[in-house]
Amino acid sequence: MDKIRIALIGYGNVGKAFADMLLRRADYIRDTFGTEPVITAICTASRGACIRPEGIDTKNLTDDMFDSGIDAFGVIDSGEYDVMVELTPINIMTGMPATDHVRKALQLGKHVITANKGPIAWHYRELRDLAKEKGVCFCYEATVMDGVPVYNLAQKTLMGCKITEISGILNATTNFILSEMERGVSFDDAVEEGRRQGFVEADASMDIDGWDASAKLTALMNVLMDEEITPMDIRRTGIGGVTPEDIRAAKAQGKWIKLLCRGWIEDGKPVGVVEPTLVDEGSLATTMEGTASYVTINTDLMGGVTVVEEPFEPEIDHTAYGVLSDLIRILTDRR
Amino acid sequence: MDKIRIALIGYGNVGKAFADMLLRRADYIRDTFGTEPVITAICTASRGACIRPEGIDTKNLTDDMFDSGIDAFGVIDSGEYDVMVELTPINIMTGMPATDHVRKALQLGKHVITANKGPIAWHYRELRDLAKEKGVCFCYEATVMDGVPVYNLAQKTLMGCKITEISGILNATTNFILSEMERGVSFDDAVEEGRRQGFVEADASMDIDGWDASAKLTALMNVLMDEEITPMDIRRTGIGGVTPEDIRAAKAQGKWIKLLCRGWIEDGKPVGVVEPTLVDEGSLATTMEGTASYVTINTDLMGGVTVVEEPFEPEIDHTAYGVLSDLIRILTDRR
Repeated sequence: MDKIRIALIGYGNVGKAFADMLLRRADYIRDTFGTEPVITAICTASRGACIRPEGIDTKNLTDDMFDSGIDAFGVIDSGEYDVMVELTPINIMTGMPATDHVRKALQLGKHVITANKGPIAWHYRELRDLAKEKGVCFCYEATVMDGVPVYNLAQKTLMGCKITEISGILNATTNFILSEMERGVSFDDAVEEGRRQGFVEADASMDIDGWDASAKLTALMNVLMDEEITPMDIRRTGIGGVTPEDIRAAKAQGKWIKLLCRGWIEDGKPVGVVEPTLVDEGSLATTMEGTASYVTINTDLMGGVTVVEEPFEPEIDHTAYGVLSDLIRILTDRR
Repeated sequence: MDKIRIALIGYGNVGKAFADMLLRRADYIRDTFGTEPVITAICTASRGACIRPEGIDTKNLTDDMFDSGIDAFGVIDSGEYDVMVELTPINIMTGMPATDHVRKALQLGKHVITANKGPIAWHYRELRDLAKEKGVCFCYEATVMDGVPVYNLAQKTLMGCKITEISGILNATTNFILSEMERGVSFDDAVEEGRRQGFVEADASMDIDGWDASAKLTALMNVLMDEEITPMDIRRTGIGGVTPEDIRAAKAQGKWIKLLCRGWIEDGKPVGVVEPTLVDEGSLATTMEGTASYVTINTDLMGGVTVVEEPFEPEIDHTAYGVLSDLIRILTDRR
């Protein structure tokens, strides 16, 4: 049977969840595509890498299978894979080192999947064109709203439509904090509770200052509206300045405060805004509780289509499915 | 240039809107698929049919171009088309005559698009298998939520997931009436207002009694959960019995009444329910105002994904886009 060989660059929670999900759906992939999916390389941050051209039994990984002398580029250069999956920790402000990993693998003519929004927010057009030149797939469904199809929705199901505007709530951490504040919890206590539940990071500034949301909006505008902007081009206001008084004053007018992302074209130029915004009580945005998120894609032919991601346990599986759906897209497109 | 020839069976508002939209996107189709879309046959209810193998200029249709001696089957038998688009008025209780049109065209080895939920609610499996046997496409995106991708969402973007439950608000007329009643308008006045706005039909019983919602839920369950049920199998309660007192009593508990559709598997058997249901104020269902609708698809790998259709003017374009997206799907799949 034909094989598709996968290299995982980064093997934290998402990588492990993806490896598990791949085992659960191996039969489906074999039956549907006549292809055997095998993980042939795993690169970790602390233990080095494991390369096994014959396939790695991810259920029985041991430390002695890893070679501490091999790093991510060593794995990428080895060429012992068909698809490189980029899952390293993100630096939102630079898109590195993920972008270098993606570029290198594409240059070698490998398909690439990234769950990392950095490369899409900072270098999308270059990487897209490189993939096209090399005749390979470049997929990134998990970069926005985890596994919920956003890019695929637009690219596979809204074909022929021109996308005129994108809006939504794209950052779970700030939405959770604002939801808690609506209930009278203080900002600091909300952050603490988010940390306790595990989805607010030790340094929450990338979320609270609106950088994460800006990077996601940038990624969506670059891909779906064919723009070439970076997160620096977004008019960005975080939620650090939102006070309990602001929330109460909004409530008195029948409004809630949400960190909305909006992108559109004005006088031929892309405009992207991320800022705390008043929304009507009872509107879709106010139904996004805790870590829920949504995006509305406005089109010329049929108005708006909205997709909603509901909170899901374990959330990591959502992201892992985004990666799996990219793998399935590669298998579909190369058929 | 390669041509794709289209026969329109039924030429009311949706047919005309589709013909207009096709002209607006002809360049896109030529550029993307290297194919020239031409309408070669139009069949009307009152004037008979017009068949022009060289293509019909839909902007300049005149009565003398129609032959009153040719009916739908005459057009279908003529074979002067590659894709048959079925747009005749629906009989929800039988799925006829749409199903006969679809079956005949498939038997002749033609691709089929239907905006008609009847064939999918009553005869999906037979028609799907026939299309497969003949090696042609059978598409029906516009049958539920107009042009909003529901089937395509599941089939093109949630691949590898098993769909475990479907729920949502699928009938605009009843949702409009219940929304008005929430605001204190009487049932009869709400029906009258819906008629004035043009989306409540003269005989509204198919909507009010829940048959339309049941047919849509059946269609979704047949296609997305691979079931083989008919609208008769749905536990169905319409909104005719909902009183202002019910609405008030619900409100006192912080609830609204919505006509919810739900389908799932219980003890290995499909269960479909359409009934007025109490939903929490502030939940997604209560944000569906007027003719808005939504569907939530629950999956094993990543929980629920929800798509929302917002009210859009002109609404008929929404349906027309559903048909256009099916045409694009056929062009994509046959590449």
